[in-house]
Amino acid sequence: METVIKSALSEVIIGNEMPFVVIGEKINPTGRKKLAAEIKDRNYEYILGIAQKQIDAGADILDINVGVPGIDEITVLPELAKLISESFDVPICLDSANHNALAAALAVLPGKPLVNSVNGEEASLDAVLPVVKDFGVAVIGLTMDDNGISNNFETRLAIAEKILTRAVQIGIPENDVVIDPLVLTVGADSNAGFVTLKTIELVSKKFGVNINLGASNVSFGLPDRHIINQAFLSLAIGFGATCAITDPVNLTGIIRATDLLVGRDSNAMRYIKNYRLRKKV
Amino acid sequence: METVIKSALSEVIIGNEMPFVVIGEKINPTGRKKLAAEIKDRNYEYILGIAQKQIDAGADILDINVGVPGIDEITVLPELAKLISESFDVPICLDSANHNALAAALAVLPGKPLVNSVNGEEASLDAVLPVVKDFGVAVIGLTMDDNGISNNFETRLAIAEKILTRAVQIGIPENDVVIDPLVLTVGADSNAGFVTLKTIELVSKKFGVNINLGASNVSFGLPDRHIINQAFLSLAIGFGATCAITDPVNLTGIIRATDLLVGRDSNAMRYIKNYRLRKKV
Repeated sequence: METVIKSALSEVIIGNEMPFVVIGEKINPTGRKKLAAEIKDRNYEYILGIAQKQIDAGADILDINVGVPGIDEITVLPELAKLISESFDVPICLDSANHNALAAALAVLPGKPLVNSVNGEEASLDAVLPVVKDFGVAVIGLTMDDNGISNNFETRLAIAEKILTRAVQIGIPENDVVIDPLVLTVGADSNAGFVTLKTIELVSKKFGVNINLGASNVSFGLPDRHIINQAFLSLAIGFGATCAITDPVNLTGIIRATDLLVGRDSNAMRYIKNYRLRKKV
Repeated sequence: METVIKSALSEVIIGNEMPFVVIGEKINPTGRKKLAAEIKDRNYEYILGIAQKQIDAGADILDINVGVPGIDEITVLPELAKLISESFDVPICLDSANHNALAAALAVLPGKPLVNSVNGEEASLDAVLPVVKDFGVAVIGLTMDDNGISNNFETRLAIAEKILTRAVQIGIPENDVVIDPLVLTVGADSNAGFVTLKTIELVSKKFGVNINLGASNVSFGLPDRHIINQAFLSLAIGFGATCAITDPVNLTGIIRATDLLVGRDSNAMRYIKNYRLRKKV
């Protein structure tokens, strides 16, 4: 199944026969003071630099999150998203739980952005899915609901099914819903990786939809985090994940190597191209 | 299914519910002049150092290959294997295609070594399996036969079945046969990784036996080989591999991270222990 995400002039296809899609995670102020200050000041020079660096490193799509306490997301998210879409020909992933901010940004963006995210909570489904439907875009569906994040993969599978069903009911095509099976840190629960991988496998086999991964939480609190993140990306791709919101500077190497090893990189061309990019960055 | 390999005093269990087993690959003179010279001179100080370094880095078993042109393997393999088994309490993997050298080494080694290897060629099956049976040890079976290495995973699966059937026919228990699905370099054939991973998945599902990987060939000729080797190990473990003949110094980090992510490392204890070992080496 293919999910097409578009900028003004180009498109990215997420799909299980395609190279793994990298959604750059770095435009997100969580834990980053300088970025938070710049968003608050609506002064975006530094952020344009982060965008450029991620594109140079091989990001296919850029995630944009402006979640700084006290700012007006309904003004700032469209403003920054529009600026980035005018500065770079790269598709955008709008990262917000506020459906009004999402709608305001979608109204000013060209192409077909990806919305990050809806989840299985009734309030989220009711607020976000109509916006996605109205703008004809695609959406990431997180496998959590009013009971929180389950550590049972059958429960996460059921939430994925609920999100898919509700999306299709209001007229969003199934291939425009990308399921995110969520991952907690293995440092707190050593079964957390397994539950996520099993959810990926089950959702992939049962629905054939695209699967996204927020791939950096898994290693939180443990030493040598990059090794755990690398292993997790390879495993997740092996089990059926097709895109990730992750660090393009440090992790595209392992992603391109994994694509090559699962037979999705003819003549190792993307692997070698990415190797050259990484050496330049 | 569990394969137990023993030294004089301890044992290593290879199995799909167990931590992945690392067989240190470094005692192998292929492409290593100093090691080749020392083997030829039967002067083993340097090799004992390599053994120690691999054990320090987390190797569970040591592979011993004395394949230097012109040496008498029937004398040298037992001599070196015995010396290592007397110097360290570590199980041995005897790496030779010469059944007389294997028999001579098995006659002097304590415990239950692993024999590397038999393959699907008639001559190999006829020569090696009786030795494995006589000494009651375990053997690695390579999925190649008189027609060479197929790039069709169904053919490799059929060869695995042939090896297992012949082993059981002469009285070797099925759990003492570890299948090695072989890997060619993805630099020469970008489908090579996929064929091996698919073979791992099929052999694991159909027979439930243990699966070994010679995990460094895959990246030959490409830049940043360690990234490809890391991704391959993670993928292979995800699909069912349970041990690898590989570089313990540089690759145990990714192996322990993968074990943790697939839920085989309670409280991340082995991952953290290995992290400390690696920082010391």
